[in-house]
Amino acid sequence: RKRILITGGAGFVGSHLTDKLMMDGHEVTVVDNFFTGRKRNVEHWIGHENFELINHDVVEPLYIEAVDQIYHLASPASPPNYMYNPIKTLKTNTIGTLNMLGLAKRVGARLLLASTSEVYGDPEVHPQSEDYWGHVNPIGPRACYDEGKRVAETMCYAYMKQESVYHHYTLFNTIPPSQALEQLRVIVNFVVLSSLLQVYGSGSQTRAFQYVSDLVNGLVSLMNSNVSSPVNLGNPEEHPILEFAKLIKNLVGSISEIQFLPEAQDDPQRRRPDIRKAKLLLGWEPVVPLEEGLNKTIHFFRKELEYQA
Amino acid sequence: RKRILITGGAGFVGSHLTDKLMMDGHEVTVVDNFFTGRKRNVEHWIGHENFELINHDVVEPLYIEAVDQIYHLASPASPPNYMYNPIKTLKTNTIGTLNMLGLAKRVGARLLLASTSEVYGDPEVHPQSEDYWGHVNPIGPRACYDEGKRVAETMCYAYMKQESVYHHYTLFNTIPPSQALEQLRVIVNFVVLSSLLQVYGSGSQTRAFQYVSDLVNGLVSLMNSNVSSPVNLGNPEEHPILEFAKLIKNLVGSISEIQFLPEAQDDPQRRRPDIRKAKLLLGWEPVVPLEEGLNKTIHFFRKELEYQA
Ligand SMILES: NC(=O)c1ccc[n+]([C@@H]2O[C@H](COP(=O)([O-])OP(=O)(O)OC[C@H]3O[C@@H](n4cnc5c(N)ncnc54)[C@H](O)[C@@H]3O)[C@@H](O)[C@H]2O)c1
Ligand SMILES: NC(=O)c1ccc[n+]([C@@H]2O[C@H](COP(=O)([O-])OP(=O)(O)OC[C@H]3O[C@@H](n4cnc5c(N)ncnc54)[C@H](O)[C@@H]3O)[C@@H](O)[C@H]2O)c1
Ligand SMILES: O=c1ccn([C@@H]2O[C@H](COP(=O)(O)OP(=O)(O)O)[C@@H](O)[C@H]2O)c(=O)[nH]1
Ligand SMILES: O=c1ccn([C@@H]2O[C@H](COP(=O)(O)OP(=O)(O)O)[C@@H](O)[C@H]2O)c(=O)[nH]1
Ligand SMILES: O=c1ccn([C@@H]2O[C@H](COP(=O)(O)OP(=O)(O)O)[C@@H](O)[C@H]2O)c(=O)[nH]1
Ligand SMILES: O=c1ccn([C@@H]2O[C@H](COP(=O)(O)OP(=O)(O)O)[C@@H](O)[C@H]2O)c(=O)[nH]1
Repeated sequence: RKRILITGGAGFVGSHLTDKLMMDGHEVTVVDNFFTGRKRNVEHWIGHENFELINHDVVEPLYIEAVDQIYHLASPASPPNYMYNPIKTLKTNTIGTLNMLGLAKRVGARLLLASTSEVYGDPEVHPQSEDYWGHVNPIGPRACYDEGKRVAETMCYAYMKQESVYHHYTLFNTIPPSQALEQLRVIVNFVVLSSLLQVYGSGSQTRAFQYVSDLVNGLVSLMNSNVSSPVNLGNPEEHPILEFAKLIKNLVGSISEIQFLPEAQDDPQRRRPDIRKAKLLLGWEPVVPLEEGLNKTIHFFRKELEYQA
Repeated sequence: RKRILITGGAGFVGSHLTDKLMMDGHEVTVVDNFFTGRKRNVEHWIGHENFELINHDVVEPLYIEAVDQIYHLASPASPPNYMYNPIKTLKTNTIGTLNMLGLAKRVGARLLLASTSEVYGDPEVHPQSEDYWGHVNPIGPRACYDEGKRVAETMCYAYMKQESVYHHYTLFNTIPPSQALEQLRVIVNFVVLSSLLQVYGSGSQTRAFQYVSDLVNGLVSLMNSNVSSPVNLGNPEEHPILEFAKLIKNLVGSISEIQFLPEAQDDPQRRRPDIRKAKLLLGWEPVVPLEEGLNKTIHFFRKELEYQA
């Protein structure tokens, strides 16, 4: 039984991780400022003796005791959210990460940083393995997130070398079954607005999505391994965005046409994780098939829309 | 007459900039924590009514009033210095830059960030123009500096867009005539240890050096221009390190042999700035010829060695 801190624990990935760790019998403290997260995502645990929810912004120092593991997930994650206030995104990923590393150092905890495939930018090699240096525009509209996460990795690396703070990183795009409705990510848009499927550009740009339960299992095994370097957790099954649009159109039985909008600036053209390292060192790979993941997501959003209505 | 703040003003570039701005009749405040800088570099101004020296670390907030321009230079600059304490290097470039941008925003000052050619990493295009995205290892030994400066650029960009803080960036390698003797940069080493010229690797890796007076003139014209995007200030004259070693061997009349040591990790193989933007927008280009700059540097170090003896 471990004492576990999850920053961003009221968010999409964090709340699923909370569920898993609580079910496994651990003590879980969630720290969140509710920028994109919702209390509703974790409210079923409120009152449980192993659970604590702290309304706190990681840009401010956090002094708590008795923590064994820190899953550091606090950060806006989708383009509209991280571009909403780029300065704040930068502060969260730089000062916020320094604070959590300072905490990890003081209490002797292990830290896992949720990084992102965006550290590879608009990649020039395929698939992207962990030692790829990336292709990122430092002063473009995505830079607050991409460069913020890159330097957060650098910080983890520096604390590990200098202060022996364990760290790990992670992740690729995930299929979001509890994404906040306002979060304008492609799958959410396609599913929720199935009567109005909008594709930015030609739709030939690719992405690879994993279902959140796969990701959460990967995070937990990474945290409990001895690996202290970046590990891609993702689904190597890559598809053009237009194909996702068509697939979803079929699955939801939508009769609408697909509308093409102008391309987004600096939109990465290809994304596909090389996950051989995770397979080799963690014995991990995604097991939920794409169609099953999409169906669960569609189901989730239908219920969500009913709830809102 | 302007009220000017120079962070890192007791360092190599900063003290030359201080000299120029004081001679031009401005009010100059130097902020420095003396990590690599020396009081001696600016002591000839102490007591002057237009000059103030504040012993302060930019990682801590700085509340001062009445500032028109901020030259933000505070950061260790040479590999041994920035690798000495990577965590501190990261804090200086992230929190330190946020603090100076916060100050600039509050007092309505314009800010110029001294960036570095290292944001281009080990470049894959030559020469490097300002729109090159770079090729940087986020978790290598140089990352604390490279990624720190990259995200500092991103921060400037974000404050400019969101808060209308003017910003500029800059710089390529400079020939250091007042570099602290302990700072192990290649030219300094070659000149000071001319009896023991040590080349890391084959010496085929290239660099391009400019003399500090050229750089200082470039910084001042950039600050007073309307450009608010990165501008390379450097000398496009590129030479292999081995050639520098031979040239200096001749200039100092050293009789020693050149010794070859193992290659340094992640050592950029080529460096050469494309300075067309500076020429076009600022009418700036370096004017001090390489040999003249080297001779001044050698002269400087001879006096420095006498002073130390
Ligand atoms: N979902 C994905 O596809 C994906 C892909 C790659 C990386 N990630 C990373 O995984 C992590 C979680 O992403 P998510 O999809 O769950 O996003 P999310 O927006 O649902 O969750 C992020 C959580 O962090 C909180 N937060 C943001 N700033 C904070 C601050 N300053 N202080 C405290 N809390 C703060 C938010 O309120 C939210 O609850 C992020 O770090 C993200 O970069 C996610
Ligand atoms: N000299 C070059 O060839 C070169 C090339 C590219 C970029 N630069 C950039 O130019 C700037 C100046 O470089 P330099 O060659 O004069 O180096 P330097 O080491 O001589 O000067 C840096 C100054 O900053 C001060 N400083 C460091 N950390 C500080 C902190 N936390 N708070 C306050 N002061 C702090 C140091 O004490 C020193 O006086 C740096 O930002 C560097 O990255 C220099
Ligand atoms: O329990 C802790 C310990 C540190 N910190 C923060 O983490 C940062 C980095 O910690 P570190 O020990 O590296 O910094 P220092 O205090 O030595 O500057 C500090 O600035 C603190 O604000 C925190 O939030 N909680
Ligand atoms: O309604 C939408 C939303 C997104 N996209 C595209 O889908 C891809 C994935 O976008 P998302 O916002 O999910 O995140 P990203 O993977 O770019 O971080 C990108 O190429 C977007 O341009 C789209 O075509 N329609
Ligand atoms: O005169 C000032 C104003 C701000 N700051 C620092 O600059 C940072 C960023 O400023 P900003 O106004 O963006 O931040 P906020 O205070 O809104 O978080 C703050 O955290 C302060 O520590 C400073 O050092 N001097
Ligand atoms: O005594 C020395 C010092 C440096 N170098 C090489 O000279 C180049 C410039 O090194 P410097 O430390 O000046 O800074 P950098 O340009 O790498 O930031 C690099 O390729 C170093 O490996 C060398 O051969 N001998």
